[in-house]
Amino acid sequence: MYEGLIEELAQKNERKILLAVIDGLGDISTSELDGRTPLEAAETPVMDELTVAGALGCHIPVARGVTPGSGPAHLGLFGYDPVKYQVGRGVLAALGVEFPLQHGDLAARINFCTVDGEGKVIDRRAGRISTETCRKLSSILDSITVPGLEVHVVPVKEHRACVVFRGEGLTDDIPDTDPGLVDHRKVPVKGSGKSRDAVRLFQQQAAELLKDRHPANDILMRGFAVHRDLPCMNTRFQLNSASVALYPMYRGVARLVGMKGFDSSPATLQGQAKAVEDALTRGFDYIFLHHKPADSSGEDGNVPAKIRAIEEFDRALPSILHHGFDVICITGDHSTPCSMKLHSWHPVPLLISGGPQRTGISSCFSEREALGGALGTMHSTDIIALLLASAGKLAKFGA
Amino acid sequence: MYEGLIEELAQKNERKILLAVIDGLGDISTSELDGRTPLEAAETPVMDELTVAGALGCHIPVARGVTPGSGPAHLGLFGYDPVKYQVGRGVLAALGVEFPLQHGDLAARINFCTVDGEGKVIDRRAGRISTETCRKLSSILDSITVPGLEVHVVPVKEHRACVVFRGEGLTDDIPDTDPGLVDHRKVPVKGSGKSRDAVRLFQQQAAELLKDRHPANDILMRGFAVHRDLPCMNTRFQLNSASVALYPMYRGVARLVGMKGFDSSPATLQGQAKAVEDALTRGFDYIFLHHKPADSSGEDGNVPAKIRAIEEFDRALPSILHHGFDVICITGDHSTPCSMKLHSWHPVPLLISGGPQRTGISSCFSEREALGGALGTMHSTDIIALLLASAGKLAKFGA
Repeated sequence: MYEGLIEELAQKNERKILLAVIDGLGDISTSELDGRTPLEAAETPVMDELTVAGALGCHIPVARGVTPGSGPAHLGLFGYDPVKYQVGRGVLAALGVEFPLQHGDLAARINFCTVDGEGKVIDRRAGRISTETCRKLSSILDSITVPGLEVHVVPVKEHRACVVFRGEGLTDDIPDTDPGLVDHRKVPVKGSGKSRDAVRLFQQQAAELLKDRHPANDILMRGFAVHRDLPCMNTRFQLNSASVALYPMYRGVARLVGMKGFDSSPATLQGQAKAVEDALTRGFDYIFLHHKPADSSGEDGNVPAKIRAIEEFDRALPSILHHGFDVICITGDHSTPCSMKLHSWHPVPLLISGGPQRTGISSCFSEREALGGALGTMHSTDIIALLLASAGKLAKFGA
Repeated sequence: MYEGLIEELAQKNERKILLAVIDGLGDISTSELDGRTPLEAAETPVMDELTVAGALGCHIPVARGVTPGSGPAHLGLFGYDPVKYQVGRGVLAALGVEFPLQHGDLAARINFCTVDGEGKVIDRRAGRISTETCRKLSSILDSITVPGLEVHVVPVKEHRACVVFRGEGLTDDIPDTDPGLVDHRKVPVKGSGKSRDAVRLFQQQAAELLKDRHPANDILMRGFAVHRDLPCMNTRFQLNSASVALYPMYRGVARLVGMKGFDSSPATLQGQAKAVEDALTRGFDYIFLHHKPADSSGEDGNVPAKIRAIEEFDRALPSILHHGFDVICITGDHSTPCSMKLHSWHPVPLLISGGPQRTGISSCFSEREALGGALGTMHSTDIIALLLASAGKLAKFGA
């Protein structure tokens, strides 16, 4: 609300903060559960106990009625105004595979695809080629040169890769070339100036290099975005922040604000618990933990799977928490109602436990209880201040 | 939220508004009270009756997570954005003793202190000298001259005084000279330009004048602040406002926004009730009444004392109210949880009674009821609009 106020008041201490994000956590009543939500139906004894010792509230990811993508939703949770700091998909994808993006780089997502003899896209994912094939094809495209620019093509997963153009004066006013539908032609490269010319040249050469291959005989590009450095979270809030996320996208958005990424081995909640321990041991005092499956099952409209994803997280919590946190925040980045199979704008339940809280209002973690919780309903960007305050990391304002 | 909107709509009428501030009122659950708060535990039949006839809500003094000092917290209640209008301790102290500050004056707090032969501070309060001694010493320092400036030294209470420098181009970038700890030397005067030179000269002469006295043989200075005129509350909101506060700090912040101060004799709630009557008789229609002890006992961590302070206020209320108010607002400036012994960021319970309210939601004045109250949770700066509206002092917006 007040630009720079929290930064001015932030102060270091030894206390440890956990921000655990259950992706897509929020939901709405579903007849499948007699009007309850998956969170209300799930057995979550650990989070309920944290609720009793703490306080609930709701957060609005961007603005009332606005459905956020994952990038802006996470930026809000980290205390970054998601409208001021807009980050494109291409940038997130590149950061997610740990590509060392520089200020001014133009990044885009690539989908390997299959086109027919007439140039129509017949499979937007080229039959979901293996990640191994993706690596091979990406390395072929990585050899493409564009005069006056560096070009890097990096594999992501299955049919997904990303491309980064590096040079002076690049802009990201390039529409997606992905038609979004099969049986349509690729959208010709539009936009303006140097970026358009570079992308066009790249697209032509890529099509040429892939044309005799099958099924991945062409590419689609989307999410063009120029990378701009964001102010570092550690500097802004006097933190030493780390991320423990399994998916590239979330590792990427965390890197964007300067968090140190920790690898989880195995790539499970148990592996994440170990990574959390590692980060704490190494002196990090703000840890972002990301749990994806609740969102995926929401997008699939799979209520039992969403309940399981929440319960699985609850069962793993003790192993994450036993390394010692002073302040624990559990929330979603946004709502993904099963009945919508989409992200939505609905306020997201928020739990903060640890530090001085107005307790005794809520007894279990649910959308319903969160509505009347002691924390009230706030913008997601306010959460960082509550976490810092709860950990004694915010000085008093004024005399 | 919309700058200038409330001012545009404000209109005069005869109705009387009371803003009663129980300082530090808000609290959090304490095990000492089986999870209740002092306000929940206190017997407050009068405020409960006002609640039944009125409506509850919560206010956030500055921003979520931000703990306010008393100055900004009160400015918010008076409808002044506390981040936009930042007022330093020195200015508040000078206003509190009714010193007629002018725009551009540089003010600071003085503590008379004891230094040893080596210049180390051995008592930061000079054994809490009497107010009488303070007057004598202040008058000695008042004789100090600094070329090109006026210098005024005004006694406050016990070891506390304040100094005001008047002249062109003064700035307040002077750090405290108070080391904040005993057995440390005074901090040498730093900062820049004219102000630093003036303060340095003043400090040298003060040390010289006091050196043979005991125990107050030197001074410490802190809270340097240049006074800037604030827009007058009466002009902004078409009010005729008065304050009834026993402590200098709160009289000071009220003067800052243009309230007329009324003296209470005796300096008790009964004396304050008489002062309120006096103000009403003289046609004031917005009266700010300040009750301090709830905050002091919160800072002492003394739960029974905080309960007593609240109950004492409740018992005195009928004598304050019987002179006739159309709209009564009772709230705190911030929370001072006994378990923290500090100001805090927690939302503050708010009661508005009188005028058309959505009644029937809350039945007693407490943090818990306030959370679900009809007024909702708002920023403190919104309260003035609700009070004006409840008193019929806000015109309709638009046709």
